Amino acid sequence: MLIVMEAGARPEQIEAVVRHVERMGFKAHPIPGAHRTAIGITGQAGAADPEVLENYPGVKEVIRVSHAYKLVSREAKPDDSVINVGGVDVGGKGIVVVGGPCAVESLDQSRAIAEGIKNGGGQLYRGGAYKPRTSPYSFQGLGEKGLEILAKVREEFDLPVVTEAIDHESLALVDQYADCIQIGARNMQNFSLLKAAGRARKAVLLKRGMSATLEELLLSAEYIMSEGNYNVILCERGVRTFADHTRNTLDLSVVPAIKRISHLPILVDPSHGTGKRNKVAPMSRAAIAVGADGVLIEVHHKPEEALKLYETVTKPGAMSVWSSEAGGRREALLQRNPKLAAAITPAVTSSNAAPMKLP
Amino acid sequence: MLIVMEAGARPEQIEAVVRHVERMGFKAHPIPGAHRTAIGITGQAGAADPEVLENYPGVKEVIRVSHAYKLVSREAKPDDSVINVGGVDVGGKGIVVVGGPCAVESLDQSRAIAEGIKNGGGQLYRGGAYKPRTSPYSFQGLGEKGLEILAKVREEFDLPVVTEAIDHESLALVDQYADCIQIGARNMQNFSLLKAAGRARKAVLLKRGMSATLEELLLSAEYIMSEGNYNVILCERGVRTFADHTRNTLDLSVVPAIKRISHLPILVDPSHGTGKRNKVAPMSRAAIAVGADGVLIEVHHKPEEALKLYETVTKPGAMSVWSSEAGGRREALLQRNPKLAAAITPAVTSSNAAPMKLP
Amino acid sequence: MLIVMEAGARPEQIEAVVRHVERMGFKAHPIPGAHRTAIGITGQAGAADPEVLENYPGVKEVIRVSHAYKLVSREAKPDDSVINVGGVDVGGKGIVVVGGPCAVESLDQSRAIAEGIKNGGGQLYRGGAYKPRTSPYSFQGLGEKGLEILAKVREEFDLPVVTEAIDHESLALVDQYADCIQIGARNMQNFSLLKAAGRARKAVLLKRGMSATLEELLLSAEYIMSEGNYNVILCERGVRTFADHTRNTLDLSVVPAIKRISHLPILVDPSHGTGKRNKVAPMSRAAIAVGADGVLIEVHHKPEEALKLYETVTKPGAMSVWSSEAGGRREALLQRNPKLAAAITPAVTSSNAAPMKLP
Amino acid sequence: MLIVMEAGARPEQIEAVVRHVERMGFKAHPIPGAHRTAIGITGQAGAADPEVLENYPGVKEVIRVSHAYKLVSREAKPDDSVINVGGVDVGGKGIVVVGGPCAVESLDQSRAIAEGIKNGGGQLYRGGAYKPRTSPYSFQGLGEKGLEILAKVREEFDLPVVTEAIDHESLALVDQYADCIQIGARNMQNFSLLKAAGRARKAVLLKRGMSATLEELLLSAEYIMSEGNYNVILCERGVRTFADHTRNTLDLSVVPAIKRISHLPILVDPSHGTGKRNKVAPMSRAAIAVGADGVLIEVHHKPEEALKLYETVTKPGAMSVWSSEAGGRREALLQRNPKLAAAITPAVTSSNAAPMKLP
Repeated sequence: MLIVMEAGARPEQIEAVVRHVERMGFKAHPIPGAHRTAIGITGQAGAADPEVLENYPGVKEVIRVSHAYKLVSREAKPDDSVINVGGVDVGGKGIVVVGGPCAVESLDQSRAIAEGIKNGGGQLYRGGAYKPRTSPYSFQGLGEKGLEILAKVREEFDLPVVTEAIDHESLALVDQYADCIQIGARNMQNFSLLKAAGRARKAVLLKRGMSATLEELLLSAEYIMSEGNYNVILCERGVRTFADHTRNTLDLSVVPAIKRISHLPILVDPSHGTGKRNKVAPMSRAAIAVGADGVLIEVHHKPEEALKLYETVTKPGAMSVWSSEAGGRREALLQRNPKLAAAITPAVTSSNAAPMKLP
Repeated sequence: MLIVMEAGARPEQIEAVVRHVERMGFKAHPIPGAHRTAIGITGQAGAADPEVLENYPGVKEVIRVSHAYKLVSREAKPDDSVINVGGVDVGGKGIVVVGGPCAVESLDQSRAIAEGIKNGGGQLYRGGAYKPRTSPYSFQGLGEKGLEILAKVREEFDLPVVTEAIDHESLALVDQYADCIQIGARNMQNFSLLKAAGRARKAVLLKRGMSATLEELLLSAEYIMSEGNYNVILCERGVRTFADHTRNTLDLSVVPAIKRISHLPILVDPSHGTGKRNKVAPMSRAAIAVGADGVLIEVHHKPEEALKLYETVTKPGAMSVWSSEAGGRREALLQRNPKLAAAITPAVTSSNAAPMKLP
Repeated sequence: MLIVMEAGARPEQIEAVVRHVERMGFKAHPIPGAHRTAIGITGQAGAADPEVLENYPGVKEVIRVSHAYKLVSREAKPDDSVINVGGVDVGGKGIVVVGGPCAVESLDQSRAIAEGIKNGGGQLYRGGAYKPRTSPYSFQGLGEKGLEILAKVREEFDLPVVTEAIDHESLALVDQYADCIQIGARNMQNFSLLKAAGRARKAVLLKRGMSATLEELLLSAEYIMSEGNYNVILCERGVRTFADHTRNTLDLSVVPAIKRISHLPILVDPSHGTGKRNKVAPMSRAAIAVGADGVLIEVHHKPEEALKLYETVTKPGAMSVWSSEAGGRREALLQRNPKLAAAITPAVTSSNAAPMKLP
Repeated sequence: MLIVMEAGARPEQIEAVVRHVERMGFKAHPIPGAHRTAIGITGQAGAADPEVLENYPGVKEVIRVSHAYKLVSREAKPDDSVINVGGVDVGGKGIVVVGGPCAVESLDQSRAIAEGIKNGGGQLYRGGAYKPRTSPYSFQGLGEKGLEILAKVREEFDLPVVTEAIDHESLALVDQYADCIQIGARNMQNFSLLKAAGRARKAVLLKRGMSATLEELLLSAEYIMSEGNYNVILCERGVRTFADHTRNTLDLSVVPAIKRISHLPILVDPSHGTGKRNKVAPMSRAAIAVGADGVLIEVHHKPEEALKLYETVTKPGAMSVWSSEAGGRREALLQRNPKLAAAITPAVTSSNAAPMKLP
């Protein structure tokens, strides 16, 4: 259930509604928006009485929500969420580029890559200290030593750090060392971990599972938010299909689908999403064109020597090389058909759009 | 097997090789390129002797091809193919927009839509006279009467016409009336129809099957080319997956994958590929950004009245509306990071790229 | 729309309803059942007036059908259909085993395999004269010469023949030479071919497409039946998924799903469905246990020399070898728990089941 | 790497090899078989020197393993593993039936269901105390109170208990209260949880993830075994595909595929695997016929009132109802073709089969 407050509702009116909800045994989530505040009501045991709530001063409307998700939805919060990760905004009008190695291997390696990312225009550093690996005999990451390296890189290069947590223990450490907690695709429905992330202080980057529907992804984000952490960033990283020309099938249509339903920012990971280095640049362009809030790129200074060898690993220089690839096609088009040329540039952010009603 | 002729090989040298190949019981396909001519050799019964061929004057190299496809590959023809459809180039440096109704219903309907497409910047008209429908009780198209309507529309609006053929009979008529023969996704492996299309005079637009691999799509194109019709345009229209937020999952990564392997142009159909009207504009942008040679858009002047109701049907006006959607995001980005902004514009065509060796 | 006649309706009453329906511009399909006759009404233009029809003598009920399929459904015909293929019943209480080579190569090869099948307990011979092949350069079958070989095999071994048609031309010949026309997975939505099969005199074996839903498979059968050929046998042969331990994923749950909705028999093809010779025997057992009406097995006398090499090719002897594999497990179980042992034997045919209402 | 000891190798010889391996910094896993002992060697850092090991007394062979899994493979242990769950054997020649409610709701509910399972011939009781639910607002299970109820049910009905653990905390409690720890499909690649299960004392039932390949499933089992817990039972529960007639597509071909590669027992869960109550009986029959070691069935005494309503919930009585379904089809077949009838009975266990070489 959602309580939409009037535009001019006073703080003490909001507070009164929250207290009433809590007295009834539910959890209240005030969500301040640009124009008004909404209050999400969550809890297991049935629903509160909407009629009583409608009579509280400052309450404009009480909405029964049919979808299982509430806090992630644009009904709860019409404006795009902008998540602050160590000073860098994710979501809103800008595009964020997150880069880094699959696994943190050493301080030297991490510094070399960070320098390339900084020069290449990246804003966030992503490197793995805890690696969820398919085989028990593969390198599983440096653990807390890797987190210490990441913290040093952040200080030296002013690049806020994103890194993965794989259980309660690593999550507590990541919450302490990093700026953003990554929950990987294999843990997207590790609900115990999602709840723990919901009690952490840092933002959470939640990757879509390999065969997760849009609704499941949103409900996993809802797990985090229902515990009180509203700083959630979604990430599309490809799904499993029969197609064999890429390792996964990057499902870019999920980006506008999420933008319609949810206020959360969404990044795209073309490195894992395609598994092919030569697809990273074109799919990054497509991700931005379709409306993603940024991309997450696997970057290594010596890809051929990486402990975990991905075909996807991109050299730092390659990020800036993208620019030199842009060329005659678009210019030729502009001259012939300026209207169409404009049409294929990235879409305006949806933050100005009117909130839509969910089905 | 592929015979690559020297840059300066004379026509009579090429002719001599062709005659030798045919004497040996094979079929020879001379493929003139910008710099040199390649000759593809096809046929069921084993392979010709490469040593004899290497000794012919003007022959530079004889390549044994491990992949089953030959004529579609960049080994056979390093330069991008540009296919002429009634005067409109598909492939190369430009972007082509194909629009029209799922089914031709009447002359009035077709004229109204054509006017919108012409004004919206479209270059080709696609409408169905023969409709492959899942149910035998659904409207199956106007048949030859529909083809006559399409021919009138072409004359009045100077829009070359693409339309689907579903069997040998309809193919003969489409070859006569239209400028480009569409082979639909359900017929991508109707090999008898592919061979007939290979004997037609007009260009062929071949749509990817709902669960076709990249290799299968290329081999279906090879069927057409092996009969002598080299004017083939590929089209990605979404594949079947578990994902339920779109009707199909549009697999944009197939575009750069095809560009690496094949010289053929590739269009993207976001209307069938997503099944949602609100996804057509963002996925069209992404298609162009990833390097597609154009888009194929379902357009109807009164979508709510269309005999075959798609959620995907777009009003003609919507095509030009795309332009007004382009906005502040890109401009803001340009000011902050010109290098990155350049990086997210569409890629230069691959025609300048060196031909790659196939695995 | 379906008209259900009373149990005691006389032939002239049925005839009167049929004539009325045809006068109204529709097509009437009388479907005699064990107890009563139903009349399916098909046609493009809207629906007939049910009230008039309800007043005809002998009419019990007029049912508006919401699903797109009619003639395939148990509403139209509650009893299991038993299709006669050259004297062999497919459907009903028996299990049919269809065997043979992927491609007919020679009379000697076909005779050697036929002998093995006859000795192994097989009842029908399936061999390809027209082969739909992914590559244009693969062996495409012997054509009419292959059909002549099949006809000789039938005479010598008293094994009725099933063989694939790939276009109108081959279908006319198959209809003439064989006992059952196979429509392959790649042509499941080749609607022009389905209609032609609906006008043929022989039974049709329709294979499920590689990514066809249950509804699509039934509607393709409906195409055949709506043209007047009610002798349709369905066949599950595996669908495309991400799983890589088999070539396709054999979807056995489709068997009971079809048995609930449709009266048509359903075979299972574990050879193409798994692509692995060592999976053919266990998946055949599972197919029979789940309620399939039979299996279709790829058999070759010299698998290692087959022109079209499948891992799936089974030697004729292997069919009878199944029997020696049956062993201690089931017997041990019988002694411990007779009730459970009974439970895992194949299900009774659904022909005694009450017809269900479709949703 | 695998060290295969001679048939007559003495305990002190085995011990000597183990000590050598550990001195070299690796982990040694002695795996006693019916005829001989194998010693699996695991560890991150490269491989031990095989030549030294081959010279130890009692060593027959040293095998370098190319697949990432070792301990799960038949190379390590040719005989089928039989896992003891509270006195009930899983694997080997018998068939095990596991039944119970999705979620433990109360002692009364659990007792009523247990009575039905006991009478219906079930041997193990599976009920959820910790429920991984897609939505944070769904009932998440009774937790430790549920475990106490399960322990009471076991005592009263002599039904050993299987129940799911979702994190380290619940795993410690499940290890204490239950006889077998279930790891659910969503946690199949929660590697931290797998390692913890590998340190538990009880057997582990590991369900295949919704889009897991066979190799990934085996590697997740390897995670558990590499920590020293060799009592692992696998479970197929359906994978995600485009097909919509069942909730998931039950992939029965994985059963013989696992039997070839691995010595671990494999159960099949037709309740989650199809999501349709009417598919549970036929797919259970098929699972046994294909060679599964048992089935896992969702059972509720009042399915219509279950807190978590599945279409899959089966009444306890239905389990014994299977027997009455068995009928005329098989008998008719037996009379006509005894060889074939034998062929379709469940396969003999693979324990007599010679061990195969892995690719």
